[in-house]
Amino acid sequence: MTHPVPDTGPASENMAPHRLRARPLGLFLPQQQPAVVMRTDCYICRSEGLAARSQVLIQAGGREILASLLHSSGEMIAPGEIGLSESAAAALGVAPGDAVSVRHAPPIDSFGALRGRVYGNRLDGAAFRSIVDDIVAGRYSDVHLSAFVTACSAFPLDHAETVALTGAMVASGERLAWGSDVVVDKHSVGGLPGNRTTPIVVAIVAALGLIMPKTSSRAITSPAGTADTMETLAPVNLDVGAIRRVVDHEGGCIVWGGAVSLSPADDIIIGVERVLDLDAAGQLVASVLSKKLAAGATHLVVDMPIGPTAKVRSPADAAALSGALQKVAAEFGLILKVMQGDGREPIGRGIGPALEARDILAVLEGRDPPPDLARRACELAGALIELAGRASPGTGAALAAQVLADGSAWSKFQRICEAQGGMRTPPLSNHRHVMTAQRPGRVSAIDNRRLAKLAKLAGAPAAKSAGLEMHVRLGSAVETGTPLLTVHAESQGELAYALAYAEAVGPILELSDR
Amino acid sequence: MTHPVPDTGPASENMAPHRLRARPLGLFLPQQQPAVVMRTDCYICRSEGLAARSQVLIQAGGREILASLLHSSGEMIAPGEIGLSESAAAALGVAPGDAVSVRHAPPIDSFGALRGRVYGNRLDGAAFRSIVDDIVAGRYSDVHLSAFVTACSAFPLDHAETVALTGAMVASGERLAWGSDVVVDKHSVGGLPGNRTTPIVVAIVAALGLIMPKTSSRAITSPAGTADTMETLAPVNLDVGAIRRVVDHEGGCIVWGGAVSLSPADDIIIGVERVLDLDAAGQLVASVLSKKLAAGATHLVVDMPIGPTAKVRSPADAAALSGALQKVAAEFGLILKVMQGDGREPIGRGIGPALEARDILAVLEGRDPPPDLARRACELAGALIELAGRASPGTGAALAAQVLADGSAWSKFQRICEAQGGMRTPPLSNHRHVMTAQRPGRVSAIDNRRLAKLAKLAGAPAAKSAGLEMHVRLGSAVETGTPLLTVHAESQGELAYALAYAEAVGPILELSDR
Repeated sequence: MTHPVPDTGPASENMAPHRLRARPLGLFLPQQQPAVVMRTDCYICRSEGLAARSQVLIQAGGREILASLLHSSGEMIAPGEIGLSESAAAALGVAPGDAVSVRHAPPIDSFGALRGRVYGNRLDGAAFRSIVDDIVAGRYSDVHLSAFVTACSAFPLDHAETVALTGAMVASGERLAWGSDVVVDKHSVGGLPGNRTTPIVVAIVAALGLIMPKTSSRAITSPAGTADTMETLAPVNLDVGAIRRVVDHEGGCIVWGGAVSLSPADDIIIGVERVLDLDAAGQLVASVLSKKLAAGATHLVVDMPIGPTAKVRSPADAAALSGALQKVAAEFGLILKVMQGDGREPIGRGIGPALEARDILAVLEGRDPPPDLARRACELAGALIELAGRASPGTGAALAAQVLADGSAWSKFQRICEAQGGMRTPPLSNHRHVMTAQRPGRVSAIDNRRLAKLAKLAGAPAAKSAGLEMHVRLGSAVETGTPLLTVHAESQGELAYALAYAEAVGPILELSDR
Repeated sequence: MTHPVPDTGPASENMAPHRLRARPLGLFLPQQQPAVVMRTDCYICRSEGLAARSQVLIQAGGREILASLLHSSGEMIAPGEIGLSESAAAALGVAPGDAVSVRHAPPIDSFGALRGRVYGNRLDGAAFRSIVDDIVAGRYSDVHLSAFVTACSAFPLDHAETVALTGAMVASGERLAWGSDVVVDKHSVGGLPGNRTTPIVVAIVAALGLIMPKTSSRAITSPAGTADTMETLAPVNLDVGAIRRVVDHEGGCIVWGGAVSLSPADDIIIGVERVLDLDAAGQLVASVLSKKLAAGATHLVVDMPIGPTAKVRSPADAAALSGALQKVAAEFGLILKVMQGDGREPIGRGIGPALEARDILAVLEGRDPPPDLARRACELAGALIELAGRASPGTGAALAAQVLADGSAWSKFQRICEAQGGMRTPPLSNHRHVMTAQRPGRVSAIDNRRLAKLAKLAGAPAAKSAGLEMHVRLGSAVETGTPLLTVHAESQGELAYALAYAEAVGPILELSDR
């Protein structure tokens, strides 16, 4: 056998790249997907046969990324230019006019494993590592990400696969170490507005000398994430060095995890699961545990509220998820306890960053605290204290309550805030409306999802002081005119908008006859 | 139970829309996905909580579409404006400055069925109709389309599902009727460059009085589609009325199917299958049969070349696919015959629109015809003639050859071209390079995929005269310097580019010692 044409150099289907001038567009695609825009009449598109492609390899200044390829027939892009989305420009570090080259996207090795998984083949650790690494490198389009998520829902991850995926996700990003055998952490499975126990738990356990370097997320679909709430009390955008200084001094922190690349594949995969509304247990377990393992946790408490409008809807679901979490955590030597709880109504009074922060301060300062928030924070902190061996079984919650009552949690919290850059006072809203009961009765059901939506329409979390303040709880007796909740907004328009929703949507709180 | 806030009008979670001014951007996303671009500081994004959404509902002038939501922090969009991709602007029919409203995408009913299918539930006809209708309406993002394709690969479509999907796809678009009990059609499973028998088959069977209203595709990933090739011989962009006039007069046509909306979901689904490189038999069957049923065919011949670099790689694959095609076609009363063939090398001499058109003319005019192309066209036409009852079994190909030899197919073809808008002469290329054998030997293998890529790099199908001309076939004996193939291009740059690929890629034709 021989070649009819000379084969110069290594056999490669990739051609020498062509150069264009960078034009950053300030364009953001869903999921921070990197993209480039080329002119429909661009000679490179034609000669490279790129027109039919949806992904291309972009190189500039020694860096390279894969990007979605969009075309423009308008004036957006001049001849000889290539437009770059914000994430593409940032990843390449290019300035306007910089030389950028474009070529065919190389074949992605892990697509073979992905296709096999679609057909039901089980994957090993190496296959998951190659898939996760390609995801983190931006080599998976939405179509490929969706195929991965769908395949892992059609044929659920078994135990070995969940362990392998967890390990691959941990390995794909940074991994923090704290030089201690006991590093505690907490995770909430979520779905409950106002359930903002984390800053209180950190203050309590750090006051008792435990290490709890807490990295939290901002809201994605909820009216507030822990990082949004905490940001009204102290700076949260800390890099790894700053986090380390805070934890070295105070034992704990409550910061935004976005500046640290912990299990970066997780955020990408979660985004696709949310679009499809699929949440397979195995993927949830890998998501939760990979973040905590990467953060260096050794002892973890999982807050799992159960209720018809919470994420976990039944005791059976809770038992299955708890078992899977325990079993996979054990493979990594992570000591884990699930704390089931009542997920039928919000916790605390406030929903929205500043309103939740005020609840936190009320608990820490002991000034008219919402009892459910204080109790739940002490239960979770107590469980961590027991897990870490600082209290005998059954006594942790009481110890936590004592640390709250004697003010040591409050002073620890203030020191943490100072260490993070200085304590702040949560802002107050300018525009409010009190919703009242239209007739006498008793509060018989609360729709957490509609409460969350109402708070978001009022401006939360972007408007820090916006959200809801609850005046009643399940079982509260009301008369005609009794305040049910107050809507807080930063502008009259947002307030009106939220109220229009409340009028249109139907029952958020249900009243039964007494 | 009662409502704490008055419920005015129908309970709806959708709010009154906000208005922006349209700014068409001339932007094209992969898969013709409609998209809008909103400013990151747009008050509507904030108040509607749209920022976290990847899809929104866009309304203008009484029309509405779902579109992907992109954000811009640059100057692309002025305050109060909304940018529209080309497909979004076209679907809404908006001009610059027209009022456009934006709101949350409504819940998509068929997502429930889609999620069920992901978990392995079988779907019925109603579920497939709702999914296919939502796909055609543009309500499925890439993520949802990928989940559908993946789920139907993880749990392959069974017979009942394939029938249901086929029916749903037929019902989702136009359906042509020809007022005859016998309407013949032909489909090629593909993967073989130069296999351009269709225009010859139409000419032969129409010359014999059969009705063959052929709608063909343009190339998507190949160097030429039948429509691209035919366009060098006659206009092919005909609407339904024009197609009907041609077929009424001549019995046959060879036109582009893009102006007629036959099984429109098919093109969208195929695009995603191609990205994932998944081709499940059930989806292929639904794809092929839905197009033909929508076109009004009653008798169908399927050309199925088998070879290591063709789409169908083994006799076993061919048998399975043939069986599924037969069984589903029978449910719709479609009479179908699969004609397996040799898929180890291209058919004819030319690869590329004009070069393939010249082969077609050579066969029709009987002037030095490529023998394999003439033979294959007569086999396929013969099978159709027999299926339609115009020849007894085993005599169809001979009858076809006679119609070719006596010139009646050639005159029918000329009349069809005139009816379609006037016959054309295929263009000749300006730039050529002959590749020659580097040593003596015998052609032992041909890589169809690399041939196709070489032709595309030379400019096909956009450059009509570009492509390849083969001078040897499997088994040909060559000496050092014997011409193997000629590369044709319309520009020197494209020619050089194709030749650089040929130098880099390794063997396209393999030579063995004699």
